Amino acid sequence: MKKEKLVALVAAGCLSLTLSWAGGAKDEAKTVKNVIILIPDGMSVAGTTLARLYTGAPLAMDSLACGLVSTWSSDGTIADSAPAGSAFATGWKSQTGNIASSGKAYTLPGAGDPAPGVSGRPLATLLEGARLSGRATGIVSTSEFMHATPADFASHDPSRKNYDHLTEQIVYNGLDVVLGGGTPFLSASKRKDGEDMMAALKALGYGYVGTASELNAFKGKKLFGTFGKTAESTAMSYDYDRDPAAEPSLQEMTAKAIEVLSQDPDGFFLMVEGSKIDWAAHANDPVGFVTDIVAFDKAVKAAMDFASKRSDTVVIAVSDHGNSGISIGDRSISSGYDKTPWTAFIAPLKAASVTGEGLEAFLPPGSSPAVIRDVVAKKLGISDLTDEEVAAIAGYKSGSLNYVVGPMVGARAKIGYTTGGHTGEDVVLYAFDPRGKRITGLVDNTEIGRYLAAAMGVDLVAATERLFTDADTLAAQAGAALSRDNADAENPVLVVSKGSRTLRIARNKSVATLDGKEIAADGVAVLSGDTWFVSKNLFDALK
Amino acid sequence: MKKEKLVALVAAGCLSLTLSWAGGAKDEAKTVKNVIILIPDGMSVAGTTLARLYTGAPLAMDSLACGLVSTWSSDGTIADSAPAGSAFATGWKSQTGNIASSGKAYTLPGAGDPAPGVSGRPLATLLEGARLSGRATGIVSTSEFMHATPADFASHDPSRKNYDHLTEQIVYNGLDVVLGGGTPFLSASKRKDGEDMMAALKALGYGYVGTASELNAFKGKKLFGTFGKTAESTAMSYDYDRDPAAEPSLQEMTAKAIEVLSQDPDGFFLMVEGSKIDWAAHANDPVGFVTDIVAFDKAVKAAMDFASKRSDTVVIAVSDHGNSGISIGDRSISSGYDKTPWTAFIAPLKAASVTGEGLEAFLPPGSSPAVIRDVVAKKLGISDLTDEEVAAIAGYKSGSLNYVVGPMVGARAKIGYTTGGHTGEDVVLYAFDPRGKRITGLVDNTEIGRYLAAAMGVDLVAATERLFTDADTLAAQAGAALSRDNADAENPVLVVSKGSRTLRIARNKSVATLDGKEIAADGVAVLSGDTWFVSKNLFDALK
Repeated sequence: MKKEKLVALVAAGCLSLTLSWAGGAKDEAKTVKNVIILIPDGMSVAGTTLARLYTGAPLAMDSLACGLVSTWSSDGTIADSAPAGSAFATGWKSQTGNIASSGKAYTLPGAGDPAPGVSGRPLATLLEGARLSGRATGIVSTSEFMHATPADFASHDPSRKNYDHLTEQIVYNGLDVVLGGGTPFLSASKRKDGEDMMAALKALGYGYVGTASELNAFKGKKLFGTFGKTAESTAMSYDYDRDPAAEPSLQEMTAKAIEVLSQDPDGFFLMVEGSKIDWAAHANDPVGFVTDIVAFDKAVKAAMDFASKRSDTVVIAVSDHGNSGISIGDRSISSGYDKTPWTAFIAPLKAASVTGEGLEAFLPPGSSPAVIRDVVAKKLGISDLTDEEVAAIAGYKSGSLNYVVGPMVGARAKIGYTTGGHTGEDVVLYAFDPRGKRITGLVDNTEIGRYLAAAMGVDLVAATERLFTDADTLAAQAGAALSRDNADAENPVLVVSKGSRTLRIARNKSVATLDGKEIAADGVAVLSGDTWFVSKNLFDALK
Repeated sequence: MKKEKLVALVAAGCLSLTLSWAGGAKDEAKTVKNVIILIPDGMSVAGTTLARLYTGAPLAMDSLACGLVSTWSSDGTIADSAPAGSAFATGWKSQTGNIASSGKAYTLPGAGDPAPGVSGRPLATLLEGARLSGRATGIVSTSEFMHATPADFASHDPSRKNYDHLTEQIVYNGLDVVLGGGTPFLSASKRKDGEDMMAALKALGYGYVGTASELNAFKGKKLFGTFGKTAESTAMSYDYDRDPAAEPSLQEMTAKAIEVLSQDPDGFFLMVEGSKIDWAAHANDPVGFVTDIVAFDKAVKAAMDFASKRSDTVVIAVSDHGNSGISIGDRSISSGYDKTPWTAFIAPLKAASVTGEGLEAFLPPGSSPAVIRDVVAKKLGISDLTDEEVAAIAGYKSGSLNYVVGPMVGARAKIGYTTGGHTGEDVVLYAFDPRGKRITGLVDNTEIGRYLAAAMGVDLVAATERLFTDADTLAAQAGAALSRDNADAENPVLVVSKGSRTLRIARNKSVATLDGKEIAADGVAVLSGDTWFVSKNLFDALK
């Protein structure tokens, strides 16, 4: 991107946010100290209803329901998680794959473009804005911590697939708590640049925990925890398959995150994702998504246990998009739906003691029909498998058994699906706001971001300019020259020269060197395409 | 039912309502003058989202979204419209088919039974309670006016199928406005008892209108209007197929109902149903339900045009249950959903100029393949029918073409369905309450009824006792004897004798004779099984 273009855009006010939820920094009296956003990825209203039917008791979310949220991305009615989470995190729409960065196409009517004609522009997130305001910050997920939704709050890249960039940015982005899956991605061997992320996070002062008991025992202010069934597991287990000694629940992680973050007298921002609700929905595996919705709801309870006793904490729970068109009732009861006893929809789920994914541990690919029938009867409670179903199970590929057996459980529970992909309907908004002006009605996903920014008194426009102004503009302002050191292909360095002084800015990190001495950046440096977006404070040091 | 049993039930307080939304008659200051409830039958959240995408503009409903409503009936997770509407109307659960009457089975945990062990017990409705409070009352629907949902508010029977009873009760139940389909059911030839309902309603003082222009021209206080494509049409047309000169829109009917009812200085209660959203959903016909949701939304706008200017009117819009598991996105885009342009879901709907039902006028059963291809191209905008699709259309039975072509349009619009029946997910609550204490969170469908009763200061327990105490109990209290005159098998008469006085109470009517002279009952007399439930005031006349 040409510097003239970005300068023009900034000057023209194209980067300004229209705050529907006015107030913000201008009205300190109306801001709150803490914000917790909990995202049940891919949860739909039928899944929530099923979860309530499954537990036989009200959900913690129930009393918080207060509106609807539209989930479309800048160019499509059905959103990918990356732009859907970015909308919450930044207050702006983007496209498939975009992590807290502007998209290329803003074709849907009403999709505000944060940087017209410029794609891949990093946009400051609620988490970054909160950090700049002095608050502690954290992300919690059951996916690997650099998966789209948590990454949306703590890193920036045009593509959610660039795990090396996302991981490094999250490690260096000054968070106080990171909890989730992702253990393998901390090792040097997993990265093209060979950097040891575990060593980096320890050098940055994090206490690292890898088990539930270590998490429970943790005392401190900077916490990094990754969990999984094995050291090779990228994501955590479904809650239903989880070994509680090895992997903490989402509720435990949420409660610990709140415990650690709430030590900060300036308050905190926390994002919690129930990541695998979405994955089970993709697989049409009702045991997976129903039990993970129940686990997510307990995390909401943990948040409300903290917030409801106070008057300084806003809690939002909202899915990023629908998934798989789940319904209570399918074509087997197109007639007779109203005469079907309620237990018919739940008993087949309760008969299972593992999710479709969890079943893999008991049923290796290529198992014999006799073994399949025996294990499926014992673990899923299904004793009437057809020969076709047995054959389908026998032929499953490792990592995909939930896609095979999920629909078998669903059919017996009369749960219908329309797709294995995301869906475009509005999702339910759940909110708690002690100020008595809870967000309600139909709100756009971008408005959630703006509402929460205003609630914290955080100005995301100013934060974006402070953290991510393009280096050409900054160099011009500072009278400095730019060059690039590509000696390490995976770790190009932006070299800024002014007179005898040399500033070297490393990609994805929040540290630079000025004449060989380390200086701290306000945020991570992002190289997007050919453009560097860096913290203004680094150039200020040249003055 | 034995009188001892009902007396015992009343004495034991089994008929008492637990008002979650306290206040009611005890707190006059907090009641409102008018209540409007609008019911988009069978509308689901994906349908609403599609309707917004279709119009390209916010819906009137959008800003009113404020919670969720659970829709289960007393014995099942997926409700029939009769008990679902009864729950709104009476504040009590019931079963498939029950019109404002207690059910037989209360098997779902938490389903409060209004009369344990007694089924078919009439329960006073919001409309009846409002009338007793002096308010004007009305029902508006696009179905025939005695279809389940409108019937739920203005009549009582264990079975929604008993149109003769429901029609007569609605005609005699003292409503001020009845608008909808149902013309044929007003004629004597349609009834087993041969009574002329058109003559009856005129004798009762109603002005009758049968066209949109007559409706528009109506001035008066008691309005009965039935509309349809022809005099034989039971329901009105889908809005998209409607001839505006012949049939008014739901918006026009709603606005006229409000105009007539709001003349009452005591206020009014109005129920409006968008009836055929449900029918199109059953047929999986997206043109039908999307355009009828848009038409319903305009009725909500009419209600809000009235209410938003005032501080004395509560408006609720809420579906009674989900239907057909509609989703934006189907298996054709299980991959690629996020790259599918938003127009892909809407253009096929806009290409159609009629609903599947409306197409029948242009395509008689048994049409030739050439005619089918030509008409479907012209009317639905589909020019790529497969041979199988042509054959399916050729073989359709009159009245079911929407079940045949609806899914063909849906497949081209990538709209998915899981069933042709109702579904069990929570539905969205839309509410406007000028008192600033809008109902929110997850509420049960019965709580909607109780909330609205409290809003009007109406006591439905007292209304039930006043309108529907069993005759055995009343006779015992009055020292009178009961007998039955079955001379007219379809119109049995309850004969009450005390000394020389004789009270004759006709079924389904609100008039009786005392010693040959007509006296008005407070409500309609209901014969449920072998038990008569009648207005107390008739027996008071014997004292």
